[in-house]
Amino acid sequence: MWGYQNPVKIAFGPGAFSQLSDLIAGRKYALVTYPEKPFDELTRQVEAQAGAPQLIIDDVAPNPDYQLLETQTARFTHHNDIELIVALGGGSVIDSAKVFAAANGNFSTIARFLETKQGGDTLSILPVIAIPTTAGTGSEVTSWATVWSDAQGKKYSLAHQQLYPESALIDPELMLGKPYDLTLATGLDALSHSLESIWNINANPISARYAITASNTILEALPQLMSNLGSLELRTEMCTAAMYAGLAFSNTKTAIAHNLSYPITQGWGVQHGIACSFTLPTVLRSVIGIGDFREAALKEIFGPDLNDGADRLSSLFAELGIGARFTDYGVPAEQCKTIIDEAFAGERGRNFIGSKDKFLAAATEHNIVELSAA
Amino acid sequence: MWGYQNPVKIAFGPGAFSQLSDLIAGRKYALVTYPEKPFDELTRQVEAQAGAPQLIIDDVAPNPDYQLLETQTARFTHHNDIELIVALGGGSVIDSAKVFAAANGNFSTIARFLETKQGGDTLSILPVIAIPTTAGTGSEVTSWATVWSDAQGKKYSLAHQQLYPESALIDPELMLGKPYDLTLATGLDALSHSLESIWNINANPISARYAITASNTILEALPQLMSNLGSLELRTEMCTAAMYAGLAFSNTKTAIAHNLSYPITQGWGVQHGIACSFTLPTVLRSVIGIGDFREAALKEIFGPDLNDGADRLSSLFAELGIGARFTDYGVPAEQCKTIIDEAFAGERGRNFIGSKDKFLAAATEHNIVELSAA
Repeated sequence: MWGYQNPVKIAFGPGAFSQLSDLIAGRKYALVTYPEKPFDELTRQVEAQAGAPQLIIDDVAPNPDYQLLETQTARFTHHNDIELIVALGGGSVIDSAKVFAAANGNFSTIARFLETKQGGDTLSILPVIAIPTTAGTGSEVTSWATVWSDAQGKKYSLAHQQLYPESALIDPELMLGKPYDLTLATGLDALSHSLESIWNINANPISARYAITASNTILEALPQLMSNLGSLELRTEMCTAAMYAGLAFSNTKTAIAHNLSYPITQGWGVQHGIACSFTLPTVLRSVIGIGDFREAALKEIFGPDLNDGADRLSSLFAELGIGARFTDYGVPAEQCKTIIDEAFAGERGRNFIGSKDKFLAAATEHNIVELSAA
Repeated sequence: MWGYQNPVKIAFGPGAFSQLSDLIAGRKYALVTYPEKPFDELTRQVEAQAGAPQLIIDDVAPNPDYQLLETQTARFTHHNDIELIVALGGGSVIDSAKVFAAANGNFSTIARFLETKQGGDTLSILPVIAIPTTAGTGSEVTSWATVWSDAQGKKYSLAHQQLYPESALIDPELMLGKPYDLTLATGLDALSHSLESIWNINANPISARYAITASNTILEALPQLMSNLGSLELRTEMCTAAMYAGLAFSNTKTAIAHNLSYPITQGWGVQHGIACSFTLPTVLRSVIGIGDFREAALKEIFGPDLNDGADRLSSLFAELGIGARFTDYGVPAEQCKTIIDEAFAGERGRNFIGSKDKFLAAATEHNIVELSAA
């Protein structure tokens, strides 16, 4: 038996941002966004169409960390009339907004839930309207948020059925003007969500269909977009694909490529979208032969010969300047085996349908890691 | 801008029926089903796994009519502790269950809402778990029910955001043993849902993807199933397709083929699945040239030459014994023009992206109607 559910109301299209006030529908809201200048202008547009928010949190930083989240959450304490949170930004903004939505002004509730998995039943969660400004995160259609504790050296996942945003307002015009590096990293993040949902114990026919559409769209549109950043058409394609990838992995969570990425992001500062995608060709090689609808889905993306497909994916990554080896990101060769061992042992690693042996074999054969260095 | 939402929690698979008690989760429930013998046995299985229901409504008839619904609804009057309705059957059962879920024991509330569209805001709607026993209706994933008033000679649609079932429990084993005629009519109903969601003003990229998958699956599996009714694999394919068609038209509603069908079902007793599908080849011919993603979707189903595709669909229908002409169903030639005029003027007709002129041209050219008879 398999299951699928995604209750998020999607509103999609160039210009869709102007419909935000209809979605807010007069409710008292907090706005969560980034501190950078373009977000000031978007904030003014939100205020112009929907009235001033009760509270603005505009100091969200990449990879939301306990320390900052605690400070930000406390600002809600004297605003218990807030009925809704509007998240305007990338994955870090939407994930932070989910933390605020669940915390009711008290971050310790969230920390306890993250660390003990206890207390989820008693959370009272505000609705969130998510407006992604990058085509990658997928957080606009998932029921979880990634939370980092630098002090603990850990990455947590805040997951709760009620954390599905009420609405995802996806406007490709908001992606115009995003720089090369961000566009690439977020686009590859979406590709990683999509593929990770396929080689996943939780994969199902619906998530697989979404993932096929997402992957094929990204593999066609992203290389074109990288040399034509101003194309609204290509931005729209990537927005569609990131949304489809989100609809896929919202029901499977991620897998081994993501679990390999977290220590690399935390330890060596590698951007999430790069860290979670540079191993994809290796993971793909390692799952050849898994069979069933998962391998069929991969063949709908990479063609009947998955070895050839993995070679083409490697070549594409090379053209895009994405290093294939752990050492390309500063990870010392002697630490790779530990990272890999821990990644396979963790929750996301256990979502992976393949095996560590086959991954290590593929990684060694293609010089992604030198196991002799360990 | 386009939108998509479908909040239904899907649980799918052979044997999934045995998970019903987990979905009921101890709530007090009413069971709605058909009077036929196989449903007695299924009712016993429900009771064995989930305990006795507070109330059983087991006299649902095809095409739920005001008169019977009023009587059945009244039986809820002394059971206001019911927390959940379990619908076990085809479209008529699931649609009846939605009426009971919204009526709170008082059918006049529903009649008023149907006839005036007033009072929707004040409805308090019970959750429904829908367990389809045919692969066709799609009602397990839609937020509406078709209600008939024979006395008024009208067909109404009870539509409300909260009428999406809480869960759709789809078990292909429940379809084993269904007879030839029912399997064919319900399979064609699913094909009609799927195609009607494409040539629809409300079509969007997500509904179109679902519709493509649904249509391709039906066109491959249904002819095979008709000569191999005991195949669980083919039943599973058709269940998947009917669900995908439901996920597609849940966001678009139906269009002209359905609106042509209602008077033919009401006036000449033609089974819904046949009445809403025999015109599909003609509607397909009439939309050739509509362009955009809709025509692209139709080409992903019927190939690049849609005229050839319509010919193949006509041939398939002929092989399956589905008459192409209105007169094949007893509809007098001189009444066809009125039925067509009224169908295009109605709400579902106005969902249709094509034109009456092109439909009439295609219908005349292929001798589906004789307009000179009017």
